[in-house]
Amino acid sequence: MNMLELIIKKRDGHPLEKEEIDWFVSRYTGGEIPDYQVSALLMAIFFQGMNDRETRDLTMAMAYSGDCLKLDGIRGIKVDKHSTGGVGDKVTLIVAPIAASLGVPVAKMSGRGLGFTGGTIDKLESIPGFRTDLSEKEFEEFVNRDGIAIMGQTAELAPADKVLYALRDVTGTVDNMSLIASSIMSKKIAAGADAIVLDVTCGQGAFMKKEEDARLLGEKMVEIGKLAGLNTRAVITDMEEPLGRNIGNALEVQEAIDVLKGGGPEDTVTVCTELAAQMLLAGEITDSYEKAVSLVKESIESGKALEKLEILIRNQGGDPEVLKDYSRFKTAPVRREFKAEADGYLQRIICDSVGNCVKSLGGGREVKEQEIDPSVGLTLLKKTGDRVEKGETIAVIHAADEEHAGRAEKDLREACIVGTEKPEKRPLIYGIIQ
Amino acid sequence: MNMLELIIKKRDGHPLEKEEIDWFVSRYTGGEIPDYQVSALLMAIFFQGMNDRETRDLTMAMAYSGDCLKLDGIRGIKVDKHSTGGVGDKVTLIVAPIAASLGVPVAKMSGRGLGFTGGTIDKLESIPGFRTDLSEKEFEEFVNRDGIAIMGQTAELAPADKVLYALRDVTGTVDNMSLIASSIMSKKIAAGADAIVLDVTCGQGAFMKKEEDARLLGEKMVEIGKLAGLNTRAVITDMEEPLGRNIGNALEVQEAIDVLKGGGPEDTVTVCTELAAQMLLAGEITDSYEKAVSLVKESIESGKALEKLEILIRNQGGDPEVLKDYSRFKTAPVRREFKAEADGYLQRIICDSVGNCVKSLGGGREVKEQEIDPSVGLTLLKKTGDRVEKGETIAVIHAADEEHAGRAEKDLREACIVGTEKPEKRPLIYGIIQ
Repeated sequence: MNMLELIIKKRDGHPLEKEEIDWFVSRYTGGEIPDYQVSALLMAIFFQGMNDRETRDLTMAMAYSGDCLKLDGIRGIKVDKHSTGGVGDKVTLIVAPIAASLGVPVAKMSGRGLGFTGGTIDKLESIPGFRTDLSEKEFEEFVNRDGIAIMGQTAELAPADKVLYALRDVTGTVDNMSLIASSIMSKKIAAGADAIVLDVTCGQGAFMKKEEDARLLGEKMVEIGKLAGLNTRAVITDMEEPLGRNIGNALEVQEAIDVLKGGGPEDTVTVCTELAAQMLLAGEITDSYEKAVSLVKESIESGKALEKLEILIRNQGGDPEVLKDYSRFKTAPVRREFKAEADGYLQRIICDSVGNCVKSLGGGREVKEQEIDPSVGLTLLKKTGDRVEKGETIAVIHAADEEHAGRAEKDLREACIVGTEKPEKRPLIYGIIQ
Repeated sequence: MNMLELIIKKRDGHPLEKEEIDWFVSRYTGGEIPDYQVSALLMAIFFQGMNDRETRDLTMAMAYSGDCLKLDGIRGIKVDKHSTGGVGDKVTLIVAPIAASLGVPVAKMSGRGLGFTGGTIDKLESIPGFRTDLSEKEFEEFVNRDGIAIMGQTAELAPADKVLYALRDVTGTVDNMSLIASSIMSKKIAAGADAIVLDVTCGQGAFMKKEEDARLLGEKMVEIGKLAGLNTRAVITDMEEPLGRNIGNALEVQEAIDVLKGGGPEDTVTVCTELAAQMLLAGEITDSYEKAVSLVKESIESGKALEKLEILIRNQGGDPEVLKDYSRFKTAPVRREFKAEADGYLQRIICDSVGNCVKSLGGGREVKEQEIDPSVGLTLLKKTGDRVEKGETIAVIHAADEEHAGRAEKDLREACIVGTEKPEKRPLIYGIIQ
């Protein structure tokens, strides 16, 4: 086989065979094919696309390019949940305990995020004492006994995806549905779940700006998952503004606790109810959607979900008192109110500007080595469509010092747009793909 | 400026600005932009194309990326001639003396070829004693005194084209009209001519297989040349079968001499007459096409063109006796006749198979360092459309030994197709672009 021939084949619109895909993925991961040939192939794929069979073959080649987790020691249908990303996304912190409390084993390996805020692992670590560096034995034991454990990813899952993604990132070849879908699904498949629920976000703060793109991506991923023999479902959710009210690591954990206590912002509750219900369906706890939704609500109302979170925290060395007393979280020394300069309606909260604002506050990282400050972030008192009066507080800034607070205030002035017209309400959930 | 932005801009179908093209060409040539980003850009150009302005800007950026020859010391309108390549292409050896004999100064810097046979420099060096390593002083002196000199290229002309072409070659991004046109024209512009006559070959043995592609390439190059202020003309010529009868370095020089003596194969004569006439028009010797053609014919009939070749050979240390006595060329020890196995018509001579056959005989090079054997090659006694009888000789193989001759015979069996129907005659010249 010859890389130049593969490039030209794809360039001229012909699908690549499974053997060809396996060959270039393994050779490239092994350092035997130069970057410049692979980037040319990726650009050819950008223009010519990949059919479903090629996309599945690429996914599988990447999934099996490194370690694959074997969760055989864990009983039951293990359901993984994945989000394509957004701002204020604390969904995993909520749906994992709910699903676990209803009998779905949650055995989650999670990465640290590069992005607006940390990943699930970073968020959990804002709970004093919480450890994510479990041994495999602890991990299995906790899941089998209590139905839940969340640990940092140690194994090198899908290294081919890692090198290919790094190359795509610098060669303008990220934005292709097949490449995006295979990148996500290869990691999920390598992570060893039996079923997968995907939260495909769409809107200004999401990777997919348009609903139809999010839908297409969801369809592609569900297709791949099914071909890989996994019960796979996708929920298309809105990410035009941040999810919920709290953005920042410890702040998001607090919002998650609020929801599990039966409170929390309406949008977070709605999205989490839907995703948790899909996890119950994927985990074959029930086959009725209505039943799944009522089980989720019951789990919150009865306090069982919160109890599961408490067990998770306790098992992994965290301080369970945080559930009752948020002052046990690290608290930012400076709190500054961001106020409206005029009467009107909050027209828009520009999602990625808010995300970048939290990152600038120290709540996210630019490079892998960077430390995250769990205490900083924002609390949105107003959300899109809310009435605001001049001088009224739109958001509270939680900052490490006055300088950071001042900069965040400026960022928010750009990000929060107040106007006279009440904006139209957007749906929170655009659809389910299964 | 940022390479990723440039890639995405082109990928999304927007033209690149002159400053952007200048920037990436100079940075890439300087080693500051990695291959993998440039190959992604090249593939994006493959799909999105470049408009005429971009193509010109790319040409100029490459032309001025290194040394540019200044032929100011040479009087008159210097006309360069370039061919897009083929098999049996000895045109320069014929048209250069003709044009020089009629007052067009021919100051030709030529490269060694990688291809079926050597380049013009290699062909000339098959004349015993002939030197192509002239000093600049000699070069100028010969052209000013005798109107003709041909030397090996010493200056590094258009180094940006060199690195870009090398990358295109291994990333499936050669076949794009704008990239091909700018590659050729950048070298011609850097070589300092005042006018350019392009021989754009088309057919199985040419880079452009289809007439419309050759025409498009010719148009693009003429457009670029004009924008660069050079009188530029293109002749679209056929390369479905080898040009003339002799293929191989010394053999081609012999055919060139035949033509300058008033003989030679009809196709070589026709193509050379047209190209030489275009050189006279480009060099402003006359503005009448008919006059130009009759001048060319006269120059051959009168022996003036042959005389000019003799002067060229004498000036550059070659043995002028070769003009009368071909045995002074190195002669291949083995001559084998390739004979027809059946009666019929020669349907096709598969041009690149014949070219590869000559390369295998040792007449061309695969890598720059390879030595060429000037003596080996083929003489086609029959050409497409000719009647052949079983046992009749189609071609004579000139080989270094029996083993090579045997292999060439096998190659020719594949390359020369005899059938019962007389094939339709193809035109030799498809058109002139000016």
